[in-house]
Amino acid sequence: MKLVIVGGVAGGASAATRARRLSETAEIVMFERGPDVSFANCGLPYYIGGIIADREKLLVAKPQLLRDRFGIDVRTLSEVRSIDRERKVVRVEDLDSGRTYEESYDRLILATGAAPIRPPIPGLDLPGVHTLRNLADTDRIKEIVDRGARRAVVVGAGFIGIEVVENLVHRGVAVTLVELSDQILPPFDREMTTPFEQLLRAKGVDVRLGDAAEAFEQESDHLKVKLRSGIVVETDLVLVGIGVRPENILATAAGLETGPRGGIRVDRAMRTSDPAISAVGDAVETVDFPFGAPTQIPLAGPANRQGRLAVDHIFGREVAYRGTQGTAIVGAFGAALAATGMNAKSLDRAGRPYQAIYVHPNDHAGYYPGASRLSIKLLFDPADGKVLGAQVVGSAGVDNRINVLAIAIQAGMTVFDLEQVELAYAPQFGSAKDAVNMAGFVAAGVVRGDSRVVLPDQLEAIDAMLIDVRSPAEFARGTIPGATNIPVDVLRNRLGDLPRDRRLVVFCQVGQRGYVATRILMQHGFDVRNLSGGFTTYQMARPT
Amino acid sequence: MKLVIVGGVAGGASAATRARRLSETAEIVMFERGPDVSFANCGLPYYIGGIIADREKLLVAKPQLLRDRFGIDVRTLSEVRSIDRERKVVRVEDLDSGRTYEESYDRLILATGAAPIRPPIPGLDLPGVHTLRNLADTDRIKEIVDRGARRAVVVGAGFIGIEVVENLVHRGVAVTLVELSDQILPPFDREMTTPFEQLLRAKGVDVRLGDAAEAFEQESDHLKVKLRSGIVVETDLVLVGIGVRPENILATAAGLETGPRGGIRVDRAMRTSDPAISAVGDAVETVDFPFGAPTQIPLAGPANRQGRLAVDHIFGREVAYRGTQGTAIVGAFGAALAATGMNAKSLDRAGRPYQAIYVHPNDHAGYYPGASRLSIKLLFDPADGKVLGAQVVGSAGVDNRINVLAIAIQAGMTVFDLEQVELAYAPQFGSAKDAVNMAGFVAAGVVRGDSRVVLPDQLEAIDAMLIDVRSPAEFARGTIPGATNIPVDVLRNRLGDLPRDRRLVVFCQVGQRGYVATRILMQHGFDVRNLSGGFTTYQMARPT
Repeated sequence: MKLVIVGGVAGGASAATRARRLSETAEIVMFERGPDVSFANCGLPYYIGGIIADREKLLVAKPQLLRDRFGIDVRTLSEVRSIDRERKVVRVEDLDSGRTYEESYDRLILATGAAPIRPPIPGLDLPGVHTLRNLADTDRIKEIVDRGARRAVVVGAGFIGIEVVENLVHRGVAVTLVELSDQILPPFDREMTTPFEQLLRAKGVDVRLGDAAEAFEQESDHLKVKLRSGIVVETDLVLVGIGVRPENILATAAGLETGPRGGIRVDRAMRTSDPAISAVGDAVETVDFPFGAPTQIPLAGPANRQGRLAVDHIFGREVAYRGTQGTAIVGAFGAALAATGMNAKSLDRAGRPYQAIYVHPNDHAGYYPGASRLSIKLLFDPADGKVLGAQVVGSAGVDNRINVLAIAIQAGMTVFDLEQVELAYAPQFGSAKDAVNMAGFVAAGVVRGDSRVVLPDQLEAIDAMLIDVRSPAEFARGTIPGATNIPVDVLRNRLGDLPRDRRLVVFCQVGQRGYVATRILMQHGFDVRNLSGGFTTYQMARPT
Repeated sequence: MKLVIVGGVAGGASAATRARRLSETAEIVMFERGPDVSFANCGLPYYIGGIIADREKLLVAKPQLLRDRFGIDVRTLSEVRSIDRERKVVRVEDLDSGRTYEESYDRLILATGAAPIRPPIPGLDLPGVHTLRNLADTDRIKEIVDRGARRAVVVGAGFIGIEVVENLVHRGVAVTLVELSDQILPPFDREMTTPFEQLLRAKGVDVRLGDAAEAFEQESDHLKVKLRSGIVVETDLVLVGIGVRPENILATAAGLETGPRGGIRVDRAMRTSDPAISAVGDAVETVDFPFGAPTQIPLAGPANRQGRLAVDHIFGREVAYRGTQGTAIVGAFGAALAATGMNAKSLDRAGRPYQAIYVHPNDHAGYYPGASRLSIKLLFDPADGKVLGAQVVGSAGVDNRINVLAIAIQAGMTVFDLEQVELAYAPQFGSAKDAVNMAGFVAAGVVRGDSRVVLPDQLEAIDAMLIDVRSPAEFARGTIPGATNIPVDVLRNRLGDLPRDRRLVVFCQVGQRGYVATRILMQHGFDVRNLSGGFTTYQMARPT
């Protein structure tokens, strides 16, 4: 067996080492067009920020280790130019010497990754305009910052954009963040991002949503960025991070099938349309979880697992990739945002029925110092309660809860299961009713019909009488326009004041007292809904 | 419907408020013999330590709130003395006035909790000898510390014992910790506790394992604790925390069934042997998860959920308590130890087949600053890979991983599922191959037969040639007695030196290079096993 792997980072490196562990006799050749294999892609912004001080740390496994320990024939600065599927050979260019040669394969794995999308903006090729994908990009950007850049424009508020913003701010650079959509972090639903957007602004970041770079121009010693809004920003550095596209040139030239967004089509064993060729990582079209619809989700974890699975299959094992859930987390300025599974936008696009609820519990027991608020949005099937997706934002404990919810989705769990899960509790770490249990209680109550909820963006449509069930002091500090204040603790005495011919919406600060009020009113025959997550959700959905 | 609840803390308070949410018309009476309801049991040690500064914070929901918001007839300092099941009445003593009266019920819930075990030790009733279960205990202990106690003896190294030790050390008290068994924290397997035991000693705690208090004696201004070992410790304060027993006096006097360890017997709907009486929380015998064997696990989370379920059933809903997994965590001195499901000791006792593996991955990407080591012990069915239990120790990320593993057990997942779970990764929060994935990879390799492992306590029995596959520098710093050093990277050249008529055991620092070496040697026909978790596990199992 001669296995040839194109690409030596996450999926490629995982495939190579797995292959050796499965076979001492296989010949394993790994081509990488860059100078480095197996580098820490996700660490690059933090090297720019100086948080990772030692560049060596970014090199996870060096070629020599792969040679010595795993007997892998690693060839860096070697670009595979074409595949001859008939003859089962690849043509390789040695980028040092310019020499090209052929290498045969029994099985080929494409782990070609993804490339930053380069939009057709005039000036994109100017020396001060960068993308960030590899160590060479990183070195260039870091050098500019080290030389004293004071201003930067980051185009695109996705994961990498946000991480770069944090690191530039950390270096004392004044940052303008430009994002085409009406929110930062498009993989989240908008309301879940507004607290973090406010934090970015509080940190001095000039956040410009619904705007786009239309031209980059070189001035004597700096750049001008012209935005669609007409604003011109002077800057020392531009980073364009608006997403990636699959590196599929090799695959398409070889006639392998690709999807509408360019991802190489693979089956559950990671085989392309040519059974001798597998593909893994950011280059492939995968299927989402739980629905199994085609998607493209460039993430390191799935890339690694796909590399492993592709090799398992090649060496005769039964495997089935389960699909990519899109579990992801980003942290900056002490905040963390995480998501898994579907969000409201993707469920709307897919035309799937769903219900969303919000809870805002503490990350750990409120009586123990340092508790901070988590906000969880849980999306589930309103018929059977199956969990479809979740988003968690906060400062501490976000990773914990998104992981619990991710595995719940993978296990096909329902909101009734989330009520029951027995998670770890000590006052520093959680609550007797954990944040995940709380989300389960609220969602299960909705599925059972114990509680009806309304979301902030549905308020106008249902034209209800709004009742703020918080205390008069809370009410006085700010409420939803038009709301009447009837504290939950006196609600039973005020039932006679409430209309029976009109729908009611109750709300409190986070939804809990609103739920108690909903139960009181439902049992007394009122048509009532609880604003899910209360005034906190309202303020996230409609930031002032 | 008149619902009477005996006990107003975790399970009782949850039951009462749930009942009101389900029924506006029910009459709900809650008796609590203490002065407080719904207090934060798990916070008591931290109030002694001054970490929780405000005593008010320990009172989660006060009687007035339960009355105003939930219309619950809360009666504190009211002890239920007996149950007349025939007439469906309880006899109550008002502890203030000494008056007794009857209260009728349609349905009764016993949430009587557990009491500290008071071993028959002479001097147990001396004023300086305490147990810690409620606010009054806490006030007494705190006062002694506030008055300047310098020395304390803590008897029992369970969860509460450890938490009290940390808080006393925090207050400058010199602590002697006495534990009858040969390890601290008996709910864990011994080897998983040794790093924390060493940490306790490093913090100045005088840890005395395999010893017991045999007498407490009052000296003029202090106490003497005589230990079984003959040692006498002079101290200002003794805390006895050797466990709890169900508060079942009321139940047994009423003729309700109890289990061999005294827990009130309940069915899956939390009904006792009298269908008009339910019982919840620390007072009940429950079933374990996943096997469903009778057990008694006093934990706040299950108590709360049981209170909720008992009420759901009483109000006509179909419910089924799933059993208690025993998910628990304890943190002290910056370390955390957590467990869920079965451990090796409980599996041995139950006579169930199992396999254990160890991994020692970083809590987050090693290239990002501040990564710290997690140690995970995973127990699974060797036939089908079903996850049976897990223990996680470390400093950061312990809660996260135990929660993921807890829900995996609840979902009936296998080690093959753990290979695939898609958890959140950014360098501050995790790894592309998360610690849980790593545990899954290793365990799945064992079930598939790709790798054979040996545990430290099996080393003598298999009488193998020991090969340390780490670097010569690591070998020189310390290894397992009798081991030969052959670094993994040169192993393929040294195959001729190895015996084919003798079993081999390879090991490295954490098990990963050992696994590569195992694969090399297995494929070359050697009879080889990998020491699971490597030298790190060895040092935990056999601390010097």
